[in-house]
Formats: sequence, C-alpha cells, structure tokens
Amino acid sequence: MHLRVIVPVIGDTFAQSVGAEITAWVSHGTTFDVVALARGTASIESEYDEALAAPGILDRIDEASSDGVDAVFVTCFGDPAVHAAREIADYPVVGGFEPAVLHALSLGERVGIITVLPNVLPMLRSLTRRYGLSERIGCIRVVDLPVLGLEDHELLLDRLHAEASEAVAKGEADVIVLGCTGMLGVAAALQRRLEENGTYVPVVDPTGAAVSWLESSVRLGVRPSRTTYMRPPVKARSV
Amino acid sequence: MHLRVIVPVIGDTFAQSVGAEITAWVSHGTTFDVVALARGTASIESEYDEALAAPGILDRIDEASSDGVDAVFVTCFGDPAVHAAREIADYPVVGGFEPAVLHALSLGERVGIITVLPNVLPMLRSLTRRYGLSERIGCIRVVDLPVLGLEDHELLLDRLHAEASEAVAKGEADVIVLGCTGMLGVAAALQRRLEENGTYVPVVDPTGAAVSWLESSVRLGVRPSRTTYMRPPVKARSV
Amino acid sequence: MHLRVIVPVIGDTFAQSVGAEITAWVSHGTTFDVVALARGTASIESEYDEALAAPGILDRIDEASSDGVDAVFVTCFGDPAVHAAREIADYPVVGGFEPAVLHALSLGERVGIITVLPNVLPMLRSLTRRYGLSERIGCIRVVDLPVLGLEDHELLLDRLHAEASEAVAKGEADVIVLGCTGMLGVAAALQRRLEENGTYVPVVDPTGAAVSWLESSVRLGVRPSRTTYMRPPVKARSV
Amino acid sequence: MHLRVIVPVIGDTFAQSVGAEITAWVSHGTTFDVVALARGTASIESEYDEALAAPGILDRIDEASSDGVDAVFVTCFGDPAVHAAREIADYPVVGGFEPAVLHALSLGERVGIITVLPNVLPMLRSLTRRYGLSERIGCIRVVDLPVLGLEDHELLLDRLHAEASEAVAKGEADVIVLGCTGMLGVAAALQRRLEENGTYVPVVDPTGAAVSWLESSVRLGVRPSRTTYMRPPVKARSV
Amino acid sequence: MHLRVIVPVIGDTFAQSVGAEITAWVSHGTTFDVVALARGTASIESEYDEALAAPGILDRIDEASSDGVDAVFVTCFGDPAVHAAREIADYPVVGGFEPAVLHALSLGERVGIITVLPNVLPMLRSLTRRYGLSERIGCIRVVDLPVLGLEDHELLLDRLHAEASEAVAKGEADVIVLGCTGMLGVAAALQRRLEENGTYVPVVDPTGAAVSWLESSVRLGVRPSRTTYMRPPVKARSV
Amino acid sequence: MHLRVIVPVIGDTFAQSVGAEITAWVSHGTTFDVVALARGTASIESEYDEALAAPGILDRIDEASSDGVDAVFVTCFGDPAVHAAREIADYPVVGGFEPAVLHALSLGERVGIITVLPNVLPMLRSLTRRYGLSERIGCIRVVDLPVLGLEDHELLLDRLHAEASEAVAKGEADVIVLGCTGMLGVAAALQRRLEENGTYVPVVDPTGAAVSWLESSVRLGVRPSRTTYMRPPVKARSV
Repeated sequence: MHLRVIVPVIGDTFAQSVGAEITAWVSHGTTFDVVALARGTASIESEYDEALAAPGILDRIDEASSDGVDAVFVTCFGDPAVHAAREIADYPVVGGFEPAVLHALSLGERVGIITVLPNVLPMLRSLTRRYGLSERIGCIRVVDLPVLGLEDHELLLDRLHAEASEAVAKGEADVIVLGCTGMLGVAAALQRRLEENGTYVPVVDPTGAAVSWLESSVRLGVRPSRTTYMRPPVKARSV
Repeated sequence: MHLRVIVPVIGDTFAQSVGAEITAWVSHGTTFDVVALARGTASIESEYDEALAAPGILDRIDEASSDGVDAVFVTCFGDPAVHAAREIADYPVVGGFEPAVLHALSLGERVGIITVLPNVLPMLRSLTRRYGLSERIGCIRVVDLPVLGLEDHELLLDRLHAEASEAVAKGEADVIVLGCTGMLGVAAALQRRLEENGTYVPVVDPTGAAVSWLESSVRLGVRPSRTTYMRPPVKARSV
Repeated sequence: MHLRVIVPVIGDTFAQSVGAEITAWVSHGTTFDVVALARGTASIESEYDEALAAPGILDRIDEASSDGVDAVFVTCFGDPAVHAAREIADYPVVGGFEPAVLHALSLGERVGIITVLPNVLPMLRSLTRRYGLSERIGCIRVVDLPVLGLEDHELLLDRLHAEASEAVAKGEADVIVLGCTGMLGVAAALQRRLEENGTYVPVVDPTGAAVSWLESSVRLGVRPSRTTYMRPPVKARSV
Repeated sequence: MHLRVIVPVIGDTFAQSVGAEITAWVSHGTTFDVVALARGTASIESEYDEALAAPGILDRIDEASSDGVDAVFVTCFGDPAVHAAREIADYPVVGGFEPAVLHALSLGERVGIITVLPNVLPMLRSLTRRYGLSERIGCIRVVDLPVLGLEDHELLLDRLHAEASEAVAKGEADVIVLGCTGMLGVAAALQRRLEENGTYVPVVDPTGAAVSWLESSVRLGVRPSRTTYMRPPVKARSV
Repeated sequence: MHLRVIVPVIGDTFAQSVGAEITAWVSHGTTFDVVALARGTASIESEYDEALAAPGILDRIDEASSDGVDAVFVTCFGDPAVHAAREIADYPVVGGFEPAVLHALSLGERVGIITVLPNVLPMLRSLTRRYGLSERIGCIRVVDLPVLGLEDHELLLDRLHAEASEAVAKGEADVIVLGCTGMLGVAAALQRRLEENGTYVPVVDPTGAAVSWLESSVRLGVRPSRTTYMRPPVKARSV
Repeated sequence: MHLRVIVPVIGDTFAQSVGAEITAWVSHGTTFDVVALARGTASIESEYDEALAAPGILDRIDEASSDGVDAVFVTCFGDPAVHAAREIADYPVVGGFEPAVLHALSLGERVGIITVLPNVLPMLRSLTRRYGLSERIGCIRVVDLPVLGLEDHELLLDRLHAEASEAVAKGEADVIVLGCTGMLGVAAALQRRLEENGTYVPVVDPTGAAVSWLESSVRLGVRPSRTTYMRPPVKARSV
C-alpha cells in the first residue's frame, strides 16, 4: 500500500523529521511520501490556524485522490479538515487524535493527553466531546512549548515526564497519549522513564498509532462511511 | 450599535433577502450592513463547504475588526469558522446554531431542529455533542431541500410543517428550531400552523435569535472569553 | 412591552434596588413594575424557602395574567416556581438561572457560577442536571454571604473576585455567572478586576440576562411550549 | 417504628384506600397513621399542583417532627416537597419515585415507568435527569387516566398491561414501575398477566417500595445527609 | 423467608463473623445460613480473583436453587458472578454494591465509596459506569488495607474516618458507603465520629443494605427480570 | 511476533475455521497458534457461560505467559476474562469487542453491532456502558442464530444484511460491526451487498480488527497499564 502523509503546514520544516519517523513506523511493504501545504500556516496552534489550513489540506486530498493513494495521514493532533476530507475521499483518512486516543482506550481506563500550548486545550476538549469520549479522557495537559519549539528533546522529555508523572499520581491517567504529532521520537523514552519510577504506564505515539491504524484500515478493507461522510453536493466553489 | 452580517457564501444571492430579514429583527437604534465572501462556496451543505468557506469568513472578520463593528453574525446554522473568529475578535460573534438552540432550551424540554439536507445531519449532531447539549436535543430532521431551493416558501412551509408535526406527535420535540438561516420569514407561519393543529409549540427563527443574542451581548457588556478563545500565537500564515 | 418583575420574597427590602437595576437594563420602550409577595419568606436560600414561596409567586403570576403583561421575570437564581408558572402563563416567564447560564454558554467553554451560601449548592447542582447542562458547568462556588448580607458591595466584590480568580486559575471557569439576583450592580466591576489581572473573562449579570431574554422572547414571538408546560387539569384547589 | 403517611392532597378521598394498602405492606411491628393536607389541591398532576401542595406538605412534616415519628412517606410519585422536607426533618423522608425506581434498578437493565397523564411526563423526565438516572430509564408512558379516575381496577389494569407489554416488546423496559402511588393494589396482577404472556418481568409497586425503603433506612440507622440537606437559615417566613 | 449467604471465598475465615453480622441485620422471622466456596480464592481483590471465584459461586447458586431458598446474598462489594447468577436463579440475588449504593442515592447527592485496596478501584469504577450511576458517585477511595487485614477495627475506623472526612470536606461525598463487605460492624461508629466532627453524614453498611434489600424484594414479590437475565441456552459445559 | 489465539470454549469445533481465518488476517512475519479450553462451555452466549469459561481462559493466559508469546487474542466478542487476563499478562490481550468497536468509531458516527442471540444483548450493552461508549453505539441487533448455528453462511449473510440494511435506513448505524467472532468470513460480502443497495457502509470483522490491533500494539511497544490492571495480591487460590 502507498500512504500519503500530509504535513498540514507551509514550509518544509517538518518534512525530513516526519519522513524519518514514518519510515520507522511503517510495515514492510508500505511505501509513502510526505507533502506540506502550498497555503496555510507555519504551525497549527489554534482554531484560527486550523481554519486557515483547511483549504490547503483539501488541495492535498484532491491530489491524493488523483494519485490513487491507499490512505492519508494528516499529521496534526487536532484532526484538521479530516472530516471534510472524508467527504471527498474514497480511502481511509486520519489525523492524530482518533487513532492514538482510540488505541489508548484499550490499554487502560483513563487516557491522559499531553499537548503543546494552553491555546489548543479548548480545541482538544471540543474534539473529545464531539467524539463522545469524555467519560474516558482523564486529563488534557500541556508542556507549554510551541510546536516550533519541540526539537529540544531533553527539555520536551523532562516536561512530558513531569506532566505524565503528576497525571498518574493524581489518578488522572492510566495511559499517556502524546497530544502533538510534532512530539517525534520521545514516546518510548517517556514510557521508560515512567516505568523507572515504579509503574508501567503505556505511552502512545500518535504518528505510530496513525500509521498502524491506516494500515489496519486498508487490511480490513474499510474506508469512511458514506452515511456519515456524504459527498458534498455540486455547486460553485472559488477558494 | 452597529452589526456586521457575514453571509458566508460567494455571490450576492442572499444579500437582499438577508438584509430585509435583518431589518425586520433589529431593535430601534441598531444599524447593520451585510457582506458576502470574496472566496468560498455558493452555499454550505457539508463539512467540505464549511472548511472551504472558513478563510473567506475570517477575511471578513479581519475587516469587521478594522471597521470597529460592535458584533458579528455569521449567518449559517453550522456556525462555520465561528470559534476561530472568536480567537481574533474583541466583540461578540455568533452563527445560527448557538443563539437559536440556547434560546429554545428555555421554552420547552426537547428541542427539535429541522434543517435542509441529510448531508448536514452529521455536522449538526457533532455540534450538539461539541456543545454538550445532547440531553436536550430531541431530534434533527430535514426538509430535503438544498439551501438554494428554499425560496419556494409554500413548499418549504409544507415540509417544515410535516416534519414538525411528526416530531411533536412522536414526542421528539417541544420546541422547533429552524436549522438553516436560509429559511427566512417562515417561523411565524409555521408556529401558526402548528397551533391550528391544536397545540402551541414555539418556533425559533435563527436569524431573529442571533440578532437578539448579539444585541443582548452588547447590552450585557460581554464578549468571548479569552481563556477559551486565546489569541493565536504570531507566526507565518499564507492563505 | 410591559414586563412584570416578581421579587419572590415578602417585604419590600429589594423593591427599590431591583427597580433601579431593571431600569438600567431595559430597552427603550420597555415598561415594567416590581411586586413582592404577600406570602412567602424573607429570602430564598434553601429548597424549603423555595417551596414556601411557590404559592405566593403563583398568586403574582395569576395577577400578571389578569393584568395582561407581556413577560414575567421571577428575580431569583433558583428559578422558583418558574416551571409551574409556565403551565398557567401565556407569555414568557424566566427566573435567573436559565437566561444567565444559557447566555454564558455562548461566551466560553466552562461556566462558573458563584452564589451566596453553601445551602443552595445542592439546589443549583440539581437544576444543572435537570436542565441537562452538566457537561458545561465547570464549578459552582459561594461567597458565603446570605442574600440579606449582599449590600456591602466592596466585601461582595472582594469575595466574588477571590472565587472567580481561583476558578479561572484552576481551569474551572471561562465565563462567570453571578449566581444570585441579589448581587446587583457588581458584574461590570468584577469583569474589570478580572481583566486587570491579565485575562478577559466575561461576567454575566443574571438580572440583565433575564431582561434581555424576555425582550428577545417577545420580539421572537415565542412563549413556553404547551407540550412541555401543559395546562393543569381543573380540580379543587385550596391554598 | 412509627411511620407517618402524608397523602399530599386535600380531602380524604384516599385516606381509607391508602391506609388499607399500607397495612398490607408494613412489617410486623411497624405502626403508622395517614394524614391528608389542610391546604393543597385535590390531586397532583402538574408542577402547578406540586407547587401549591408544598406548604401543606411541609406543615405535615412539622407536625411529624413534633410527634416524633420515625419516618415519613409522602405518597405521591412526583416526590413533591420531599427535598424541602429533608432539610427540616431528622428522620428518613421519601416520596414514590426514588424507592421504586432505585429498587427497580437492581432487577433489570431498563426501567419502564407507567404513569397517569401526559401532563406529568415532563416532571418525571426532569426528576430522572435531576437524579442522574437517565441512562437506565428506558421509557415513561401513560395510561391516560387522571389520578381521580384510577379506581376502576379492570380498566387500569388493561391499560397498564397494554403499555407494559408494548414497552417490553419494543425493548424499552425490563422492569415496570407503577408511576403513580394512586395505582393501588394492581402491581401483582399486572406482573402475573405479563408472565402469562410468556416472559417474567417484575412490576414494582411504589407504595410497597417506599414502605420497605423507610423500614430499611430506620434499620440501617440512616437519615438524609446534612451536607446535601442543610438546615434552612433562620428568617421571617409567612405562609 | 430463608436467606442464603454466600461468602465467595475459600476457607471459613469469615463464616463466623459474617454469621454474627447477618444475625444483627435480619428481620424477625428471617432465617439464614452461610456458606463459603469449595473452589475459589482466599479473598477477592482483583478482576482475576473475581473471575476465579465465579464458578464456585455459581455452584452455590445451583445448591441454593435446589434447596429452595428465598433469596441469596453474595457477600462481596464487587458483585462477583451476580449477573450470571441471576440468569439461573428464580429468586432475588444481590452482591454488596447495588443495594448499598442505590440506598445511598436517596440519602444525599454525592455518594462516596471507601474500599480496601487501589487494586479494586478500576473494578468499582467499571461497575459504576456499567450501572449508569457515574453522575452521582462523587469519589471512590481506599483505606489501603487488604481484605484479610480488616480485623483491626480501630485501625480500620481511623482510616475510614480520615478518608470520609476528607471526602466530605472536599465536597466529594454527602453519603458514605463502606465499599467492602468485610468492613463488618464499623458503619455506626464511623457515622458517629463524623457527626461528632460537626456534620451528620449517613454511612451505609453494605451487609445491612443487602439484607434489607433482599427482604424488601421478597416482600414486593419481585425477582430478576427474564428480559435482562435470560436463561442460558442448553449446551455442553465442563468446569 | 507470535500471537496466541485462545478460542474460549471446550472442544475443537472452531479450531480449524479460526485458524484459517487468522491465517488470512495476520501480517507477513506474524506466527500464531490456536488453543481451545480444557474447562469451560461449548459456546458463550450468556454471562453464565462467560463466568464458567473464565478460569479456563486464565489457565491459557498462564500458559501463554510461560510460552513467551507476544500477544493474545481471546476470540469472543464479549471480551470474556480479558480484564482479568490483563492483570496477570505482560503483553497485549484483547477480545473481540474493543478492537472492532474502537476501530469502527473512526469510520462513521454511529456504530451498529449485530450479534447472535437476544441473550447476549444485555451483556453487550453493559460492556458499552462500562467502556464509556454509549454516545456512539447506535444499535445492537441480533441475527437470532446461536453461535453453533453460524456455519450456514448464506443464511447468516441474509440475516446480517436484513439487520444492517434496516439499521442504516433508520439512522441507527453508519458502520457495522459483526458482534460475534464466530461470524467468520462474511464481513466483506456483507459490505458488498450493502454497497450494492446504494450506499457504502463499512463492515468491521472482529477477528481482523483484533489481529491488526495486537500487531499495532506490539509495533507501538505498548501493553496494558499497570495502574488500571494492577497485579493481583498473592494469596491462596484453589480453582
């Protein structure tokens, strides 16, 4: 299968690191390519950014459809334009939230999400309610670092560990989900540190979860339902 | 106070009828103007349309901020780009869903929404969950007419009446909310027809509810909270 | 339109201050009068008080019906006898809870209510569940002052500010609702103080919200649904 | 133990039949007396009736406290004034809803309530939400007979059977609760008829459930919590 | 009536103390006997223990059916095998959770459960959700003592008091339920200590609640619904 | 990786067909073996069967641990003994419900489950509440065939199609989950038939979903959380 990874921002800041990460997660036999946006924002940290990025993401979905890819990963935890994309795609499309959180639900009772900035908390809480999952999300916390400030892995790991430890100690989380797809390559290290503190708590990497999810969807022969994601009626559109 | 009405579609199909309707609803002393989008879609009937319309709506919000308006009504029941707009606006902004449905909650136990096409049902159910109001929304039904096919008032009224009557008879609704801001000028007539059937059931017009809501917000001296709608961080944006 | 304000207590302690406050909130063209109860309690701070006040409130509703008023505001945050009143009234009737909380829901994600005494907390939590709004009410706090001890505005404001600041800091509230209609004339000052602390958080005054709501209802041409609020069957009544 | 039964209506219509019924349910060693109201309504079939009956019920609670009874049953399914009563009583007080519905929850998954008139449906749905039990109440249906029209046991039984059978067949109920304490002496017969149709479905009599509940409360040495039901502050009251 | 008490563990550690406790709770005229398991575990403190105990409990249910008992109490707060038992029993069967928690719901708004070890917290939270009671359970806390370490009543009482006091002070509980049926004979003492601290908060003993519940069920003439608890189809079983 | 498939019934009825099915779903490089139970029941169609099968399943978990497998699939949709197993396993363990339903949640709004007999409906509804997923499960329906009567694929497919079509037409489902792991090899055919009716609705095969889920878990390096699934305390156990 061929997977298209859409990095929903302008510029190629993430292209290389995302590519390396996807390479690490895909199964034998899965090929992929990574594309950024021609129009959008430098990062997504608000509903405003998400709204501005949407048309650029949907451009890439159109291309993916023309290119005949098997599945698309929009690599952002806020699931930007993902539901719109499913209305026009005949193949599985996911963002970062759904696969990571749904996988986490099978690993422990309360899921704790740790994301970047306070700005995105209302968005993630809205997604949680939209998806009907409030009963199982124990907390949504932040490391208080912007998306473009995640490259210092030691700092990131320290903050993730501080938040995760506190969430576990207070009974707010039994499983940790990294709440930003820009938190690349730290899930395993965080899980190890938490276990060294005395208790095994799984940490779900959203990139890994999304890649697995898409491969599973293709293997299961399923794609988005047309009764939820109906094709948009034909009309004049100028964007 | 001065109210800016954003008709979130391209073209001026709705400008005149929306203007006439707003004129009928505003209080003495409220002035307003109506603008359509420079980029977007001809109507909004899917998440896809909503995503494509968002940047054009946010352009108009920027203008409204520069123009120093007191409040903005994005006249579409799906509340497109409304939450993004609140992140950048220092004045009240509403779409059609929130004011109509929240007002309806004070009139009866179960709110029945009647909208245009099946395509928008998942969107409206998602909004219902996002807003945490599922316990009180008794049904969401459709007249099965596209937004651009609502101008035949008799046909529209017949279908609204059929759906509303059935919803009331089945115990799915105690209050009816018209679920499309394009259903102009029919709320009172529908309410009258329902009452002639024997029972008074209020019908909430989303345009009237939104205008009242914005005037109330201005009078109360309130605007969107900055802990929910934080200002988007500065960054490169190219849309 | 003519608005009848029912102060649901005996004695005329509140008549003047409520009258002054209503004067400040009504639109141009709205007239009103204020009546207290002939039978009831000196203040409402328990379900017991609410139960004892109910017949006296319903007496005033009967009078309002005879007098042909356009809308009634029962000025108490616990919505005492409001649902019973709607069964016998052919015009909008609200208490303090519904309009203030429903308006607040459009301003931010989590609503924080600050009321008078711990005694009324269970009542307000019961109303929250009854109205199906639990998902959005972030906290209900108290200033620990009785209704008849709210006239010291500085003390009241200090306590409101302390509670509101803590609620916002702990992520329990994005919007503040004053949870007692006796907290007259302090909403704007509280909002200002909170903003001076660094973040804009809207504060909703329940009297202003109720007046706006009733005027909006009249303008929208709606009143309580007869499928929720059916007319009580005829029978012997002696109270 | 001595049980006080408050029939929350004026007149002695129910005194004898209620007394006979209580006699059938009490344990060996429990004594009781039955009192009606000095002020109130002839029956309770609306929030309006409930509001008017409340002071008369609270008069009887005061008397019960003076008389040193061990527990009080307010024999109406709408739990009128029950929460107010608990604020002033130092002994268990229940209405008809809580003991019947809570007992039913241990007998099957979905509880179906069958009550008298459509008028009381919104009240019972409000109680259901207030008590946080919506997930387990499968349906609330009516026999469409007024409280004062329940004495024809055959007619009542036929209608109960029709509603209960349909509720069970449609998967809306696994346990039936009689939703009016005036439906005296028919629970066992209804249970028998349902079983003759092929499936055992328990039917809970609210009078029996309340008597058992109160006896259990006394045996367990518990009464209403003072953190939920705080004593009303002292103040002028004139009712 | 004759009550069978199943102590769902191997060994006769609890036989005598449970027998003494039941003797204290049963009504005049109720006889009972106590049986432990022939196969199972020494105590139940995990889903693992519960799963291993289930067949041994069901053996005892088979015996109870043969012996013609009127009701069965499986004396463990986790309700082990209780739902399976109801599928094969024609009489009331309860564990410790349902009767205690359901009774508590009528005594105050928020129920606080205090159990033995952290290990059982996920089980009890799962039961809470399964029973649809999450809105009313304010907290589940532990004394951090194993089931086989509860015989030191002073230590147990001190820890229960510490947890209960904190739960009440933090607004997490209005009623306390002892969350282990091995916490014998301490409910009244805990209730007294809490009241001496200044506020009356009821404490529900799960053994007393279960005995009362079963006697009430027999008196009401009800047993588990056959639409929830259908008879298991005939098939080969070898355990 | 090596996967252990536990068919949680006695006898080898399913061994061959399950083996063939797993072969079809596993990735290149995954090996597996299939084991049935030494003690248990011939099929699982009630809580009673589930309780009786649990110790036999846990025996197989012990063996799997000794054998050093990488993951375990307990191939039954009721997730029998799965939570108990996670307390003693240091590798991923799933049944049929979790992976299928969680995957389905990403494909459409409302999930419809179609299972075997009415007997298991209460169990599956209980699981739905336990997992906190009620808001998204649109219906649970039955083909009314026993587990041991599923081998007639044409009959099974006809009944699945009838139920699925009706669920979709009535707006109860946007995604179909086969609610019994014994419904082998029919998911793709059902999906095809539904699409031939005019609308694409995905059908999730629980065996395929479970295999994918376990492989994903291993790839993600995660296993059950030790704060939800704590190790059972050491004690005497005799089963």
